[in-house]
Amino acid sequence: MPMIQADIRRGRTPQQRDQLIRDLTRIVHEVTGAPMDTIAAVVRELPGAATYEAGTPSPEYVPGAGGIDLAALAELNARRRQAGQR
Amino acid sequence: MPMIQADIRRGRTPQQRDQLIRDLTRIVHEVTGAPMDTIAAVVRELPGAATYEAGTPSPEYVPGAGGIDLAALAELNARRRQAGQR
Amino acid sequence: MPMIQADIRRGRTPQQRDQLIRDLTRIVHEVTGAPMDTIAAVVRELPGAATYEAGTPSPEYVPGAGGIDLAALAELNARRRQAGQR
Amino acid sequence: MPMIQADIRRGRTPQQRDQLIRDLTRIVHEVTGAPMDTIAAVVRELPGAATYEAGTPSPEYVPGAGGIDLAALAELNARRRQAGQR
Amino acid sequence: MPMIQADIRRGRTPQQRDQLIRDLTRIVHEVTGAPMDTIAAVVRELPGAATYEAGTPSPEYVPGAGGIDLAALAELNARRRQAGQR
Amino acid sequence: MPMIQADIRRGRTPQQRDQLIRDLTRIVHEVTGAPMDTIAAVVRELPGAATYEAGTPSPEYVPGAGGIDLAALAELNARRRQAGQR
Repeated sequence: MPMIQADIRRGRTPQQRDQLIRDLTRIVHEVTGAPMDTIAAVVRELPGAATYEAGTPSPEYVPGAGGIDLAALAELNARRRQAGQR
Repeated sequence: MPMIQADIRRGRTPQQRDQLIRDLTRIVHEVTGAPMDTIAAVVRELPGAATYEAGTPSPEYVPGAGGIDLAALAELNARRRQAGQR
Repeated sequence: MPMIQADIRRGRTPQQRDQLIRDLTRIVHEVTGAPMDTIAAVVRELPGAATYEAGTPSPEYVPGAGGIDLAALAELNARRRQAGQR
Repeated sequence: MPMIQADIRRGRTPQQRDQLIRDLTRIVHEVTGAPMDTIAAVVRELPGAATYEAGTPSPEYVPGAGGIDLAALAELNARRRQAGQR
Repeated sequence: MPMIQADIRRGRTPQQRDQLIRDLTRIVHEVTGAPMDTIAAVVRELPGAATYEAGTPSPEYVPGAGGIDLAALAELNARRRQAGQR
Repeated sequence: MPMIQADIRRGRTPQQRDQLIRDLTRIVHEVTGAPMDTIAAVVRELPGAATYEAGTPSPEYVPGAGGIDLAALAELNARRRQAGQR
């Protein structure tokens, strides 16, 4: 019965979404020992502005090399610089 | 911001739970490109009887070799046999 | 794949919880047409004080005749009377 | 306060969705004894490819007689045949 | 790590949604003491007909003065009148 | 109908939990205009090790002055220092 829910920002390719949900299911199977047939999973995709972290809205996904999330990375680094200056 | 929720039955070792949540986070990082620092995950553990699949309560987790879930597997096989006879 | 989650207050009997999850699954099967084997459901039970409605903490479950939730009913009626006087 | 969440694949008629959420609410009322006015419920509808079971993406909903989910049924039967041959 | 999820009906302005998620995050920070950088939040917006309370589908959001939800208020008042007559 | 879910680590006082859920409900009321009577909220409390952020398990809550979460803050700062050295 393991039940997996992932809320992510929109913008990934269908291939990324497919790989995400497939790999999440496989991990649950391997680590918990639950049979594949008993694992359910959903991915819900949201606009960036409907998700927050660190008190600010998330930027939309901007993929870089290898699918890396350039926008989220830039924001994380900005937060770290700010934190370093406090 | 990816937000991961896993509802599983209780009974896994702390090591299994730890590996589960660590691997789920890693997969999300690798596949969506989101920075590790922006991924949040929870594992909620429930009594077997509080979870259902295929219309019957899940048995409690009974680990076999390599952590395989013997009870869930037995139940899945019973369902398949029943379906085969219909 | 329908995935059903119910958060309720603690205090129901195992029979009530069992009937709840069984009936929720059956309803989903009958109304959506999804095969029973593809429906996953969980019931999570919480202390009353961890749940709110109408801006006040829920009382603990106090079962009356037929399992009716006397405490929640009393609180609902008190809210209605208050609303009627405004 | 019971809080009910259903994640299903898209494609049901408004009538099916309406009946689903109405019946889920009624079941919770009847089984837990909670007053109708205190029960909240949501149905979230997702593309088939955003949901997985048994390690493969769910097909889109293909309604047959009485709303039965022909696509999910076909896939479940294929999995059972495969399992029977192993 | 606090993880906040809000399911609301669609129809709020981007400013309302932004303020909602920002204020939810701030409250969690102030009350639980968790650092802002560790709080994740999502708002999911749904059609009125996909959400129920008190056993009937929610009306779509109809904003009045100050953003007050006129449609939900009218329905709540109708339920109270009905309850008062019983 | 707004439906609010908060997953936090265990360890807050009943007063903190009560204030959290009360304030979350009030914010939703003020910002979305939904009547108080139509807002449902739950707080689920989890062991630190059942929650992850940034790829590592969360420490248990260690309250400092004003309820500030000393353990999460220490971990966040350690992550920032590490990031600064990369």
